Amino acid sequence: MSNQAINIQFPDGKQQVFTKGVTLTDIAQAISPGLRKKAIAGSVNGTIVDLTRPILEDAQIALYDASSKEGIEVIRHSTAHLVAQAIKRLFPAAQFGVGPVIENGFYYDISIAYSLVPSNLQQIEKMMKQIVQENKPILRKEVSREEAKRLFANDKLKLELLEDIPENDIVSVYEQGEFYDLCRGPHVTSTGKLQHFKLMQVSGAYWRGDSQNQMLQRIYGVAFATKEEMNDYFVFLEEAEKRNHRKLGKELDLFMFSEEAPGMPFYLANGQIIRNELESFLRHLQTKYDYKEVRSPLMMNRRLWEQSGHWDHYKENMYFTQVDNQSFALKPMNCPGHMLIFKNERHSYRELPIRMAEFGQVHRHEFSGALNGLLCVRSFCQDDAHIFVTPQQIEDEIVLALKIIDEVYQVFGFQYEIELSTRPDDFMGDIMLWNQAEAALKNVLNHLDYPYKINEGDGAFYGPKIDIHIKDAIKRSHQCATVQLDFQLPEKFDLTYMNEQNEKVRPVVIHRAVFGSIDRFLGILIEHFGGAFPTWLAPQQVKIIGVADSHQIYVQQVMHVLQQEQIRVSEDHRQEKLGKKIRDAQMKKIPYILVLGDKECDNQSVTVRKYGQSELISIPLQQFVEEIKQEIRQKELPGSNA
Amino acid sequence: MSNQAINIQFPDGKQQVFTKGVTLTDIAQAISPGLRKKAIAGSVNGTIVDLTRPILEDAQIALYDASSKEGIEVIRHSTAHLVAQAIKRLFPAAQFGVGPVIENGFYYDISIAYSLVPSNLQQIEKMMKQIVQENKPILRKEVSREEAKRLFANDKLKLELLEDIPENDIVSVYEQGEFYDLCRGPHVTSTGKLQHFKLMQVSGAYWRGDSQNQMLQRIYGVAFATKEEMNDYFVFLEEAEKRNHRKLGKELDLFMFSEEAPGMPFYLANGQIIRNELESFLRHLQTKYDYKEVRSPLMMNRRLWEQSGHWDHYKENMYFTQVDNQSFALKPMNCPGHMLIFKNERHSYRELPIRMAEFGQVHRHEFSGALNGLLCVRSFCQDDAHIFVTPQQIEDEIVLALKIIDEVYQVFGFQYEIELSTRPDDFMGDIMLWNQAEAALKNVLNHLDYPYKINEGDGAFYGPKIDIHIKDAIKRSHQCATVQLDFQLPEKFDLTYMNEQNEKVRPVVIHRAVFGSIDRFLGILIEHFGGAFPTWLAPQQVKIIGVADSHQIYVQQVMHVLQQEQIRVSEDHRQEKLGKKIRDAQMKKIPYILVLGDKECDNQSVTVRKYGQSELISIPLQQFVEEIKQEIRQKELPGSNA
Repeated sequence: MSNQAINIQFPDGKQQVFTKGVTLTDIAQAISPGLRKKAIAGSVNGTIVDLTRPILEDAQIALYDASSKEGIEVIRHSTAHLVAQAIKRLFPAAQFGVGPVIENGFYYDISIAYSLVPSNLQQIEKMMKQIVQENKPILRKEVSREEAKRLFANDKLKLELLEDIPENDIVSVYEQGEFYDLCRGPHVTSTGKLQHFKLMQVSGAYWRGDSQNQMLQRIYGVAFATKEEMNDYFVFLEEAEKRNHRKLGKELDLFMFSEEAPGMPFYLANGQIIRNELESFLRHLQTKYDYKEVRSPLMMNRRLWEQSGHWDHYKENMYFTQVDNQSFALKPMNCPGHMLIFKNERHSYRELPIRMAEFGQVHRHEFSGALNGLLCVRSFCQDDAHIFVTPQQIEDEIVLALKIIDEVYQVFGFQYEIELSTRPDDFMGDIMLWNQAEAALKNVLNHLDYPYKINEGDGAFYGPKIDIHIKDAIKRSHQCATVQLDFQLPEKFDLTYMNEQNEKVRPVVIHRAVFGSIDRFLGILIEHFGGAFPTWLAPQQVKIIGVADSHQIYVQQVMHVLQQEQIRVSEDHRQEKLGKKIRDAQMKKIPYILVLGDKECDNQSVTVRKYGQSELISIPLQQFVEEIKQEIRQKELPGSNA
Repeated sequence: MSNQAINIQFPDGKQQVFTKGVTLTDIAQAISPGLRKKAIAGSVNGTIVDLTRPILEDAQIALYDASSKEGIEVIRHSTAHLVAQAIKRLFPAAQFGVGPVIENGFYYDISIAYSLVPSNLQQIEKMMKQIVQENKPILRKEVSREEAKRLFANDKLKLELLEDIPENDIVSVYEQGEFYDLCRGPHVTSTGKLQHFKLMQVSGAYWRGDSQNQMLQRIYGVAFATKEEMNDYFVFLEEAEKRNHRKLGKELDLFMFSEEAPGMPFYLANGQIIRNELESFLRHLQTKYDYKEVRSPLMMNRRLWEQSGHWDHYKENMYFTQVDNQSFALKPMNCPGHMLIFKNERHSYRELPIRMAEFGQVHRHEFSGALNGLLCVRSFCQDDAHIFVTPQQIEDEIVLALKIIDEVYQVFGFQYEIELSTRPDDFMGDIMLWNQAEAALKNVLNHLDYPYKINEGDGAFYGPKIDIHIKDAIKRSHQCATVQLDFQLPEKFDLTYMNEQNEKVRPVVIHRAVFGSIDRFLGILIEHFGGAFPTWLAPQQVKIIGVADSHQIYVQQVMHVLQQEQIRVSEDHRQEKLGKKIRDAQMKKIPYILVLGDKECDNQSVTVRKYGQSELISIPLQQFVEEIKQEIRQKELPGSNA
């Protein structure tokens, strides 16, 4: 092999010799022109680089097209440059902050005197498309720091970013036509490669996220590999918007917010019915699994939070008040209260496991900008439990906790994924106990044949944990349930029980939540079901519409029969047309509409319109009652056939 | 009639002539020596006076013996002087504050250097009895202020009290042997009249109730008309102590307190079961009465509390915190939150009445000295409701509110009394509306044929109210339920609805609570039932005891059958004697103990021991299940025959 030849190894292990200085574009072309056309970026010895970067030594390489994670991220990053170039053409005085890739797209923070409005986004997008037409090559240049400072002399944000580049790192600039940007890359080879993008919105953002700094304008955009993917995304957004729990919350009278208590939901009658059903469902299940429900105070003395470690690790998120001239905190978690309850009595190994549950209202401060309907609030009800066990009981109790979680999620039709987070570097406690606990968790998951992902080193400092991520009806992922082992809290509260040898020993604590936050879970459910709840959860289960006044006696009779069975039923007795009454009941997504006229009166029957189905069915009243009772009792999902 | 004759009129209207200067003792003697002996005090023209006070003009008189309210109060007051005399003999340096009559007795605040212990009380009581033996006459003297100052020159507390006597009032001193006291009287004629008394306890009390002043020692005592009454009182105290909810709360594992949260109960599993049953019972009833349950935040911005008037009238009892650099208050009441919910939508007269209910956790500061188990706490759950009505609906809604209250109290076997409080001097709002409202409340009570007491001028400034006082099993009275009209809150929150003429008008708000505070109500229930709850409320409903290991299969079968019916059942599987297991279950006041042995296994029967009954009954398992289910469903009281 001449010293101008280098050895290139492909992902499948095959090797080929190329001339030193060959680029990934050349290699792709050598394989096939189609591949060259599809390639977006590549990697050389594990580092993602531009396709145009010369390769100077033997290397393992890979090529990425737009369908790969690596490829689409490069496209999104290049689209961020594209938007900057377009803005610079339209607003020559614009200065630029950072422009990173985010989920589905990118943003770019810019500084201009003018406040951008939606029509500006259209204008910018038009300019972006023009630059795509121009198909400007995108070129990487490595420059000295002095040169970089000259290039960005008028752009003080970029100068600040330049300062932050570590001394020994190479400084690179990407150029496309008249535009250049300080950037590590990599990028696509030319602006013509950027096809499927859209600007979404503009909002304010502090430079470097610090409210002491100047406020910039952040332009959000999305970019996809194909037109179909982009269309799918907009269909998804539309679907998500239809299911938006804040919108449905208003339409279905589920909850409200007030500026007098930002981030603290007010549940209206309909929302409270669902909350009560959720609580009562879990309470019932917890009784079956031998949990003991308790109720602890909402605020406790600061010294308790110092003891628990919340004061050191969490006080920024806590609310404080004064009681008898002492500082008290509103509980952000129920754990310390439960530790006090455990400590209230002496315990023997015979009593363990003790499963202590609470529907505990907690308060946690969140920035007002982070608040998001029921999904991010400042006060919520946790379905919290602490299970006090001997080390030998860990495995069995984890199995039971996963079983109750599974039983709950089945009811809502949630698929879920499991993640196991293991010992972090800053772990506390006995490494032997950690090893035993991690092995126990893995054993359990293997034994139950649950697939799971391991997040090495991602456990809490107090113990390893299992997090459950549910997938909702439109495939979004939400972390709700958690099962966490805790070796620290029993130490901090000096918890003990008497073992078989009559020695005082420490229990292990398992933290467990199924819904997580009932409030957030309700928000997820609203979106999951798009507001069309299963009958057992529906605030209104049946709407009765009498065809004429002459049917009132029968209407009242049917109402009475249903009410006797605790079915949530109401009558629409407004002076409106039948059609309007039916439409209004459908707008409220009521599972069953019963239309009662002459035929129904005569036959003691009901004509049923089930939500989401177009056909009408006439059945005897008694049959309807039995069927809806069974549907409620079995907590059937909408559309399921029972 | 000579000018030395005066005309005395008796309560029955009869008149008789006596010589001017005659005393009530003389008059009593003239009627009968028995009457003279029984008389304790009397009244002249409506003023209670000593029996020895000369009567100088025509007068209406009455005589009171110890069985009357007036008579026993004089005895109690004289017993307070008696305790002071005894203390002065034993501790000559003692100084005296006030010594008023209270329920069942009296107290006297004294200042001595020595800290009294229970044995001192015995010593003082002994001295009191000696003074009774001495039968010292008790004499009234009217003195000049100068003379009074000389008499009490060494007693600075009395000198302070002397200062407070209005300038034109007569200053009187009562003398018994070597002891004299500054006092308006009246008193019994001699210490020999004081027979049935007992000193109860000593505690600290600030002079004039002001914590800036010196701490005095307060001696409590009781006094009664007869020995029987005193004995009854001690039997009552013993019974009350047996039923003490703090004691039973510990014994039955219902709740606990921690110094980390004084006045804020922790509910243990057993207590939480009862709370949940109470909530669920009322929730069910409220659904029947068409209440809509809501849930409002636990804290809200201070400006809301300024708007509602709580800031002006209640801030000393409120807890505050900071949210986003603004002052927020933990809610002491749910009203303002409910007003915001009402205001969230436009309302038409067609929607009224709106009955908005919440199980709302409120926080109200109480002095630590006032805290008393569940009866006086700093955080509690109110079963609060606000009913928004047109003025025309007031009457019907009051009827419904009283009906739900009646339905609830019947279930617990509570007798109750009704008090109607009317317009106070500082009333706010339209006097016409007040008149209409008071008439409505009276109409309702008359119409329902409820006896009631009127407390003139005792209503809240915002409207008249009905308070319900329940009588517990040992005849103590507790105010729990309330129904209050409110004309002010709708003004303050500018609430409106559209009337039939499509005009914006104000609704009236009715505040309503049935339990009042669930926590306090639970405390009352514990004492009312002495911890032996009706089966539907009992934390543990059935305890199963297998006679031998060979009965385990049947024990498990019975457990399973009961659990399937949601009956709270557990097994005593300890290695203990049968007798001990039965005694332990009785200590926990579990309604049913099932003993299962050979005979029961063979016959599929159970041998039942019902709490509080000595006989054992053997019945088929299925019969037991049906009977207990019916008892629970019907919420039968213990000892009732269904």
